[in-house]
Amino acid sequence: MLNAKLATQSHPNHNTLVKLSDNVTFGARELVIIGGPCAVENRRQMELVAQQLQHAPVQALRGGVFKPRTSPYSFQGLGVEGLEILSEVRSRYNLPVITEVMTIDQIESLAPHGDMLQVGSRNMQNFDLLKALGQIDKPVLLKRGLAATLEEFVMAAEYILSHGNSQVVLCERGIRSFDNFTRNVLDLGAVVALKQLTHLPVIVDPSHAVGKRELVAPLAKAAVACGADGLMIECHPEPEKSVSDARQALSLDDMVDLVESLRPVAVAVGRQIAEPLNLPQLAIAS
Amino acid sequence: MLNAKLATQSHPNHNTLVKLSDNVTFGARELVIIGGPCAVENRRQMELVAQQLQHAPVQALRGGVFKPRTSPYSFQGLGVEGLEILSEVRSRYNLPVITEVMTIDQIESLAPHGDMLQVGSRNMQNFDLLKALGQIDKPVLLKRGLAATLEEFVMAAEYILSHGNSQVVLCERGIRSFDNFTRNVLDLGAVVALKQLTHLPVIVDPSHAVGKRELVAPLAKAAVACGADGLMIECHPEPEKSVSDARQALSLDDMVDLVESLRPVAVAVGRQIAEPLNLPQLAIAS
Amino acid sequence: MLNAKLATQSHPNHNTLVKLSDNVTFGARELVIIGGPCAVENRRQMELVAQQLQHAPVQALRGGVFKPRTSPYSFQGLGVEGLEILSEVRSRYNLPVITEVMTIDQIESLAPHGDMLQVGSRNMQNFDLLKALGQIDKPVLLKRGLAATLEEFVMAAEYILSHGNSQVVLCERGIRSFDNFTRNVLDLGAVVALKQLTHLPVIVDPSHAVGKRELVAPLAKAAVACGADGLMIECHPEPEKSVSDARQALSLDDMVDLVESLRPVAVAVGRQIAEPLNLPQLAIAS
Amino acid sequence: MLNAKLATQSHPNHNTLVKLSDNVTFGARELVIIGGPCAVENRRQMELVAQQLQHAPVQALRGGVFKPRTSPYSFQGLGVEGLEILSEVRSRYNLPVITEVMTIDQIESLAPHGDMLQVGSRNMQNFDLLKALGQIDKPVLLKRGLAATLEEFVMAAEYILSHGNSQVVLCERGIRSFDNFTRNVLDLGAVVALKQLTHLPVIVDPSHAVGKRELVAPLAKAAVACGADGLMIECHPEPEKSVSDARQALSLDDMVDLVESLRPVAVAVGRQIAEPLNLPQLAIAS
Repeated sequence: MLNAKLATQSHPNHNTLVKLSDNVTFGARELVIIGGPCAVENRRQMELVAQQLQHAPVQALRGGVFKPRTSPYSFQGLGVEGLEILSEVRSRYNLPVITEVMTIDQIESLAPHGDMLQVGSRNMQNFDLLKALGQIDKPVLLKRGLAATLEEFVMAAEYILSHGNSQVVLCERGIRSFDNFTRNVLDLGAVVALKQLTHLPVIVDPSHAVGKRELVAPLAKAAVACGADGLMIECHPEPEKSVSDARQALSLDDMVDLVESLRPVAVAVGRQIAEPLNLPQLAIAS
Repeated sequence: MLNAKLATQSHPNHNTLVKLSDNVTFGARELVIIGGPCAVENRRQMELVAQQLQHAPVQALRGGVFKPRTSPYSFQGLGVEGLEILSEVRSRYNLPVITEVMTIDQIESLAPHGDMLQVGSRNMQNFDLLKALGQIDKPVLLKRGLAATLEEFVMAAEYILSHGNSQVVLCERGIRSFDNFTRNVLDLGAVVALKQLTHLPVIVDPSHAVGKRELVAPLAKAAVACGADGLMIECHPEPEKSVSDARQALSLDDMVDLVESLRPVAVAVGRQIAEPLNLPQLAIAS
Repeated sequence: MLNAKLATQSHPNHNTLVKLSDNVTFGARELVIIGGPCAVENRRQMELVAQQLQHAPVQALRGGVFKPRTSPYSFQGLGVEGLEILSEVRSRYNLPVITEVMTIDQIESLAPHGDMLQVGSRNMQNFDLLKALGQIDKPVLLKRGLAATLEEFVMAAEYILSHGNSQVVLCERGIRSFDNFTRNVLDLGAVVALKQLTHLPVIVDPSHAVGKRELVAPLAKAAVACGADGLMIECHPEPEKSVSDARQALSLDDMVDLVESLRPVAVAVGRQIAEPLNLPQLAIAS
Repeated sequence: MLNAKLATQSHPNHNTLVKLSDNVTFGARELVIIGGPCAVENRRQMELVAQQLQHAPVQALRGGVFKPRTSPYSFQGLGVEGLEILSEVRSRYNLPVITEVMTIDQIESLAPHGDMLQVGSRNMQNFDLLKALGQIDKPVLLKRGLAATLEEFVMAAEYILSHGNSQVVLCERGIRSFDNFTRNVLDLGAVVALKQLTHLPVIVDPSHAVGKRELVAPLAKAAVACGADGLMIECHPEPEKSVSDARQALSLDDMVDLVESLRPVAVAVGRQIAEPLNLPQLAIAS
């Protein structure tokens, strides 16, 4: 390992807590479950997600408005229009929001609307973006690059930490391999190693890792069992109509069931997941 | 997927049970935990392993007498001498034994001493060996190749099944990747996929997957959580003195602790692990 | 392949020519050889490089002033000071200059000093940077990502093309693999495939691919033999003192010898390399 | 590198020559070109191959009679019947024959019919087979495993050498990667490294590496340019009717053209390829 003096474990029992909102903290005994679609598509979609998942409960919503896409001709995200949707849903349902930042100049426009900014896999070594995120006062979710070594991943976090922002959460989301049965290979050994090497919270995104919804729930349980501090799960009111990654999103009902099934696993390893909530049902904007 | 007509799932609720001994069956509600060293080194070593692990309990012992080694100058296993040790320990402690077969002509000599023959990663596509194992009446543990796709892995099992032996257990043991922080990458997505694609029991070897003992226990829990039917864990009375793979073996005390810690995880996903036993202490041969 | 309508081959005999200067064009019969250090370190270093390599000759100089580095504590490049050095050497020796751009806002400052802007491997899918480069009137050298599929690589070029800039040259520079004897694996199959799939010039960087100088020359010959339109070779007046990638840089003498040895290979496949020049020797600034 | 004391380079200018027949030697100035189909299908096929390729000329024929196949239901080779075909064609056209050995007990039956025994990628670490081949007096062509490191590859050769057979030729044939545009990635950096690390001849099989016939010829040139001692190229009288690997076989006409096009490349790097022959045309058995 290179000299990642800020990210690496200086004291075996020290764990950094990253606060997402008054009630939600990464790295604590209670896990953080993040749900939502790959991309914000319209207000109704996000309302449906929030309304149903708040009972599960999830602790935060995800949804991209700026989308990195392989093809320039694919849907690139709603942009500013999407930000307004995120803001409305966030305040109406009182759920923190995590959304992806792709460029330095998006930071300013995203900051008022999101509680945490996500750096996607393709930008894990966009060093100038990392430096800029090191200068803001907002948590950063750093996803592992598609073929990033653990050293490169930790060093990418070190870029943010060394520029002044200590609120970094790492996210394992699958790495490239020779086998294309699953989209990527979920590397839970990396999660275990990162928990030992660093003091940062580590969460897992099994949806992007495997790319097939029928594999997501068992891997989510595995992630909890090996010590992950949270999960990011892709779900959608109508998965088959998702504008991107339709093959991997869970339905909202399946997402609720998944959270339920994770509770005993969390307890088995000394962690916990919030109990289901019974909140008033709000009318969905059409 | 190719036409793996015998290995693939014909009925969603059909699971093959592979019987290792009167009391031990792969694929049942109770998981099968296999412990032992990489290589049989001497009788005292194997007695120490058996004596301590029978209380954990483990359901079977592992130990190689024919060892595939990268270098022709490395220890190649005790050979026939090792077989006698395996036989003695097996009958003294009433524990089934799993040992590796490397060539067709070893089958005959190994069969009386082992309850299950293991095909190592490097031989997963040694097709003539697979055909020969298809013609015996003994369970086969088939380890995934270092860079085998799921299709190739399932088809290797199909070689054994199609030659008449239906007692096949698959074992995920990590695949090659670009990152050498862990020795290999444990691919639990493969375990989930194999449980859905095939009706065969699937177990996990986290020791060879990661190659560092401090990462083994959390990954063993993850394997149980995602639905594995058993585990193969490398352990040794004095790990640092192991003739091979010293860096990854657990001590026997750590192995006992691991089994203990797995019980609640198994229960959390609807499975179980045998309760600790209090058996008479036998004197160890010096 | 996705619909890369601008990058893919519409007519089997159409090849795009990308002009670097009045005398240097990528994609023509004559190959383009680019030499220089990984990073601009000081004026003397760049003068020594230019003075010796102009005779080889090389057709262009490389040298980074903004450097993407795994660690935030490593040398990050000379920045603006380096740009002035590049400008001086470029006009004094009449050699076009290629230098790396890492962010959108660097484009404006780099444009007057470089003849071609390079997008590094880590930024191949920095889509906003690609879009911005699509809007300038200057050639772009796009390096393949460390684990980018051919489809992703071609689609990254399509981002630039579809935003209005047709002057794109692709560069294969090695991909990640399980073997760390060489730093990466040079994928010449990709070069052949890209020449067939697209109409864009394709060059090869064997230095970063293998990371060991003793392997560079034979691979440079291989790249020419399989149809590459040019080469980018790392070289340094004192390789062992290079601030980065010291292990892979050639000495200037070795670089001159390499160009010499490539000539017959180019001719053997119907291409050519410029003849050695005898130019006046300029005094080196101390 | 491990202690591969027999395979590694003890003297920088010492190269082992491996004699295939009175006229054909691997490792000499003249390259060895091997052509033929993946599998021997019938006598007419092999006669057509031999008759046309003897003029190219190729120095040896390839053709498998025992075929390692992913599926047990795929064609497994003609077996003994194929051996008779090989023998007849070999003596009628006076061309040495290279054929694959998969098990120890095939060695005895193959030896009288083949001039060189090939160990396929899947058997590169079938250590007992390697030991057995170390005890015969016949050259061995050892293909690199699908995901074998250079160290593992050299050590596999060391198994043969250390058991008494010094006639080993290494063959790079592509390695597994994340990109499936080409079947595998041809690793010419490995060829260059192996030529420097060992004193053994190294040849290249571009056909299996890329799996697409239109990519074969440029990569064959690249292999020659970087210093390979020979090539193994898959070709077939009617490629589209090949029982296996139809997508990658060249037609016989294309094979003749390829040999022609390689000559100037060989000369450009100080090697040579035999001149075309004008031999009497024999009648083909129907």
